[in-house]
Amino acid sequence: MGRIVYKYVIFIFFSLLILNSFFIIAHSKNLDEKKPCKRFVLYYHDILFNGTNGANATSATVANRTKLGNFNHGMLVVFDDPMTTDHHLLSPPVARAQGFYFYDMKTTYNAWFSYTLIFNSTEHKGTINIMGADLMGEETRDLSIVGGTGDFFMARGIVAIRTDIAQGDYYFRLEMDIKLYECY
Amino acid sequence: MGRIVYKYVIFIFFSLLILNSFFIIAHSKNLDEKKPCKRFVLYYHDILFNGTNGANATSATVANRTKLGNFNHGMLVVFDDPMTTDHHLLSPPVARAQGFYFYDMKTTYNAWFSYTLIFNSTEHKGTINIMGADLMGEETRDLSIVGGTGDFFMARGIVAIRTDIAQGDYYFRLEMDIKLYECY
Amino acid sequence: MGRIVYKYVIFIFFSLLILNSFFIIAHSKNLDEKKPCKRFVLYYHDILFNGTNGANATSATVANRTKLGNFNHGMLVVFDDPMTTDHHLLSPPVARAQGFYFYDMKTTYNAWFSYTLIFNSTEHKGTINIMGADLMGEETRDLSIVGGTGDFFMARGIVAIRTDIAQGDYYFRLEMDIKLYECY
Repeated sequence: MGRIVYKYVIFIFFSLLILNSFFIIAHSKNLDEKKPCKRFVLYYHDILFNGTNGANATSATVANRTKLGNFNHGMLVVFDDPMTTDHHLLSPPVARAQGFYFYDMKTTYNAWFSYTLIFNSTEHKGTINIMGADLMGEETRDLSIVGGTGDFFMARGIVAIRTDIAQGDYYFRLEMDIKLYECY
Repeated sequence: MGRIVYKYVIFIFFSLLILNSFFIIAHSKNLDEKKPCKRFVLYYHDILFNGTNGANATSATVANRTKLGNFNHGMLVVFDDPMTTDHHLLSPPVARAQGFYFYDMKTTYNAWFSYTLIFNSTEHKGTINIMGADLMGEETRDLSIVGGTGDFFMARGIVAIRTDIAQGDYYFRLEMDIKLYECY
Repeated sequence: MGRIVYKYVIFIFFSLLILNSFFIIAHSKNLDEKKPCKRFVLYYHDILFNGTNGANATSATVANRTKLGNFNHGMLVVFDDPMTTDHHLLSPPVARAQGFYFYDMKTTYNAWFSYTLIFNSTEHKGTINIMGADLMGEETRDLSIVGGTGDFFMARGIVAIRTDIAQGDYYFRLEMDIKLYECY
């Protein structure tokens, strides 16, 4: 009889230990750079106001470039740009990007961004807050996702951006590969 | 005798297992949206400088609105505003809010904030860093708490803001419901 | 025989329990303010463009001060500044700091920063994103590290800054004590 009791006790131990382990795994963060907990690619379309394109423009220069160098240093742009799931500017936007960027170097084109992605559809409701350097000399550059709200409550992650097209001075498109590593 | 020894061993196992579990729970993050680890409501008072109210003003326009739309697009304001625990502008401030906001839409009033709450009292010493979109069309909108220092070391969370009153062009008051979900 | 089996079983239990504990400790965050997981000190050199020093300047005023008070309120500067490991401006920079600061008070000098540290050397590749209030009246003031990329993937932490020297209106140097508390 005693042995049977011990076997049960042992069985209960093992079960608890295994449950414990699952609990730990479930609560430890998945921070493998190759395994985001959520990922999607969107396209950012920036049409800069040039004085006559007010119907289409979604951004405008708030502070003009300084005289430091010849690469727009200091030019600051505030935007409310559409985000689409494909390359087409006129596709129905699935989100808005609201924020600003400015150019910051005297020797080459280089920028810095801070903005919020705003989702307000049946699929997603909430915001993702982003900031970081746009090192335009590199093929892709990483910005930080520093917080989120709604469906993206307390999110953190990385946005890898890539210039998809830059058309003259008044339109450019960025591919934004949004990777969340903390999902709740 | 053997049985008694086993009983003790079993007892030690259980104790360790339970301690383990408590340790896990203590270290796993509480990220239930309804259960912040710290919460308090403060009121933000913004008195915009209009050229003559320098004695009372705590913010001023740094970049004027652009010509994109009729909703102040691009108007950028830098502030050092008092935070009070009640609605009254003249209550003793318990913190300062230092940072900036700008309007960013051409079709409606809509803003974007980034600022630091600075506490320097006997109750709290430290800062809370915040950024996000102020979707003025919504009753309440969520900004992200992306970091903190001092008493708010490494904090993260959400600030739910609500327009409490907007008086003419030069004064508005926001209720800020500050909810931390990561406390250390 | 039965007792020997039990002893083995007990031994296995203990081993698993201890492994479990190590796993927990390895995955729980080290958030002791005195024990950053990574720490290094760098010096930030800001040479403001004054119209004639274009060869040396690495920052420039994008928006002029407002008329609120006499302490540069609203003056906004965009920079791409070198970061060195010692005090010397001309030491080979180990990183760049790209971002902006502005003055925000009417009664004293006080600023607010948001910027990215960009590392691109054999030692470090990646970025660190920072924001917070520069309470210039205090000997050291803490900003938040809100994210990172590359070698600093998903980093969080604190930057303690200290004015090392302020030379006239166009050069100042900050000591930046960079402390990461979340390293992956």
